Amino acid sequence: MEIKVLHQVMEWNDDVSAQVRETLQDHKVCLINVMGSPGAGKTSLITALIGRLRQQFAIGVIEGDITGQIDAEKIAALNIPAVQLNTDGACHIEAMSIQHILPQFDLDALDVLFVENIGNLVCPAEFDIGENFRLTVLSIPEGDDKVAKYPLMFTDTDCLALTKCDMLPYFDFDLDRVAADYRGVNPGGPLFRLSTRTGEGLDELAGHLAGRIRAALA
Amino acid sequence: MEIKVLHQVMEWNDDVSAQVRETLQDHKVCLINVMGSPGAGKTSLITALIGRLRQQFAIGVIEGDITGQIDAEKIAALNIPAVQLNTDGACHIEAMSIQHILPQFDLDALDVLFVENIGNLVCPAEFDIGENFRLTVLSIPEGDDKVAKYPLMFTDTDCLALTKCDMLPYFDFDLDRVAADYRGVNPGGPLFRLSTRTGEGLDELAGHLAGRIRAALA
Repeated sequence: MEIKVLHQVMEWNDDVSAQVRETLQDHKVCLINVMGSPGAGKTSLITALIGRLRQQFAIGVIEGDITGQIDAEKIAALNIPAVQLNTDGACHIEAMSIQHILPQFDLDALDVLFVENIGNLVCPAEFDIGENFRLTVLSIPEGDDKVAKYPLMFTDTDCLALTKCDMLPYFDFDLDRVAADYRGVNPGGPLFRLSTRTGEGLDELAGHLAGRIRAALA
Repeated sequence: MEIKVLHQVMEWNDDVSAQVRETLQDHKVCLINVMGSPGAGKTSLITALIGRLRQQFAIGVIEGDITGQIDAEKIAALNIPAVQLNTDGACHIEAMSIQHILPQFDLDALDVLFVENIGNLVCPAEFDIGENFRLTVLSIPEGDDKVAKYPLMFTDTDCLALTKCDMLPYFDFDLDRVAADYRGVNPGGPLFRLSTRTGEGLDELAGHLAGRIRAALA
């Protein structure tokens, strides 16, 4: 599938996220903002979720990267509509870019739009891009102190996905510490233990998302 | 050792980095700016380098974090002067903060000042903080596409440290691809394969840094 490459326009985020949300609501599309560090496994997770959700929902993906289109090529290979958003150096996606990019999709033919944000555990959490749902990804190799050190990303999210859990035997990672830190900043926020390599937890997360998507589209 | 906590003042970086550089040169202190993703192993690497360099050089550390003082506590436990710089949400350190923090150290008693930047593969590379030397850290679990996807961090650096190389058997990581991408953006830039767990490559990197430090202090 062909990949379009657009470049991020830096303008104020004010009001634009509300316009994006309204547009998506008009067209009955649920936007899921996927955030996490570089290499946390965001693309692999989106790929695994596409496999589990595409029978129920028509899915599109916006791949955010500073440069290049490595991830959009992976998504397009699945025969899923993908648009690469290049921020040309900027460390996060803003609502203005999403607004600018939406006409690239046939929104009436979509139910779900995943946005893979720039790999960054800091700034993306500060910008509402018009999403219905925020999914924060933290991988085991990053270490168990990340919720304490980067709290906003875990506070302003709807779900925490712990990825690469098949690597737990090889890292000194205290799951209880992460769970406790997460509960401290986000009481009641769901947490999923996942591995895209073994499949652990993916059906559970896909089921949770399916419920959230149906609620957003109702 | 007691830890001081300062908070980042957001002001323009212009000229301040040159003032920092001049101050450090007056006091014969070499500043090393350590950058990389959250969980890349920056603190572990600085700790390992302290162990190998403290016989030759008097070392201090500025630990940059959004919040908290987890890493400064680790450094202070080594009986090394450590100051925690909290950016209160900001995703990088600016020269103004370094200028503000330098009086917390007895600069005449120091040879080397490590600055551990905020865990972020994007923005820190954009800000000159008055350093003599930039050290970029990339860990194996982050994946072999990171030089291609975040080029500035690998272009504007003096050295690439590949950490967690003991994890190579467990990840699909192509060392040749990373080396080739790095050569593409930073011809002649040194690359070290490291593991703080097995000790691989640490003596070599410490030796390289010792040479650079001596040159800076000459």
